[in-house]
Amino acid sequence: MIDPAAELEITAFEWVPKFAQGYVRDLRLRWACEEAKLPYSERLISAVKRPEWYFAEQPWGQVPVLRDGEITVFESGACLMHLGEKSEALLPRDPAARARVVSWLFAALNSLEPMAFEMARVAFFSAGEEWAPLRRPSLEKQIAGRLAPVERYMEASDWIAGDFSIADIAMVTVLRDIASNISLDPYPALSAYLERAVARPAFAQAMADQLAPFASNSPPE
Amino acid sequence: MIDPAAELEITAFEWVPKFAQGYVRDLRLRWACEEAKLPYSERLISAVKRPEWYFAEQPWGQVPVLRDGEITVFESGACLMHLGEKSEALLPRDPAARARVVSWLFAALNSLEPMAFEMARVAFFSAGEEWAPLRRPSLEKQIAGRLAPVERYMEASDWIAGDFSIADIAMVTVLRDIASNISLDPYPALSAYLERAVARPAFAQAMADQLAPFASNSPPE
Ligand SMILES: N[C@@H](CCC(=O)N[C@@H](CS)C(=O)NCC(=O)O)C(=O)O
Ligand SMILES: N[C@@H](CCC(=O)N[C@@H](CS)C(=O)NCC(=O)O)C(=O)O
Repeated sequence: MIDPAAELEITAFEWVPKFAQGYVRDLRLRWACEEAKLPYSERLISAVKRPEWYFAEQPWGQVPVLRDGEITVFESGACLMHLGEKSEALLPRDPAARARVVSWLFAALNSLEPMAFEMARVAFFSAGEEWAPLRRPSLEKQIAGRLAPVERYMEASDWIAGDFSIADIAMVTVLRDIASNISLDPYPALSAYLERAVARPAFAQAMADQLAPFASNSPPE
Repeated sequence: MIDPAAELEITAFEWVPKFAQGYVRDLRLRWACEEAKLPYSERLISAVKRPEWYFAEQPWGQVPVLRDGEITVFESGACLMHLGEKSEALLPRDPAARARVVSWLFAALNSLEPMAFEMARVAFFSAGEEWAPLRRPSLEKQIAGRLAPVERYMEASDWIAGDFSIADIAMVTVLRDIASNISLDPYPALSAYLERAVARPAFAQAMADQLAPFASNSPPE
């Protein structure tokens, strides 16, 4: 729930181009806050003219940043860890269960997302460059090699690491990025997992709240 | 310190090809254990014939895995978090300081290492493929864009997030990987940081312990 008086504050962009709407990484934090019923305030900055002071909080001027009183966190993975520490609905307290969640959180961000980044360049951002179509076949194979074991694993599980957790928020947002460039049809368990996750009311709320400012902030001329 | 009776156990490869020696990711865990004076035992597996049971612990059969009694952790980032919770020498207890460390840990693994992975393919694993040299110039520019703000930041700091921490272990091992494919000469502060880090006795011990089994385990015929 967005509450302008909340101490927890998420920095997001006031407007992004159509292709990025619904895919900006503050979605991960908003989703986590909704799941855990943690009210948060928003700080919206321009994606087009990133304010100079913002680079002191985020080295590359990217979003999200999470502030919690005196504490500043950057990197969506680190922000998810911070929110996880605030709520058992996001990160279990049992040490073995916690270790599984943290393992899958890093797996999503360090073993899968790097290939999602690369595919986004090959299929979209750099699609017109000579190397991109040449790289595509081998990258598709590498992604398949990463997804296949997760597909088998998800055949027997609803969520990636026990109950729903921050690991699902990371994994599902990465899968969504992958699915916008390659088909997940060969992975029925992962497709069902993705559908199950985005059907959660907390996801829908987070999405609506990310999109809301885009409508009222006109694109730069 | 390696102690066969220690409860903490790191899984590593018994042998890897020359190019990978000293660069396998169990190094991160060994280094953390040495810094924190946490004794650990080793479980060495074959990189050539990955044991079938191992895939139940690590979805892609990769190393490292960390075991701590009943707790199993995979992904080197998650293992660093687990070790961090065991020792203040690795992860400070003050919430704001902790948040900085966790932010930079994820920055190393989600904002820098993906480009290091890609450069390793362009410059080494896939160097003979048609797309690789075509991709190289734009990737070099992207890496420069990521390194430049960290260079400026390190001009005024010895370590990446306050005192030495798991964030340095992640950042330095990523920089070492990058430096094996592109020159860090344009980044004097990062070069000095890398030198300062690998001069730590704990790094040298970790390195020696990773390399030791390779000498006695002959390569597969
Ligand atoms: N590793 C970062 C990535 C953040 C990121 O890529 N943010 C994008 C929006 S989704 C951004 O700010 N893009 C603008 C830019 O890169 O300049 C994280 O997970 O927080
Ligand atoms: N994201 C993983 C990467 C692990 C990784 O790449 N391990 C390499 C050794 S450094 C490996 O096991 N390679 C063999 C393989 O990929 O099959 C982590 O940080 O733990």
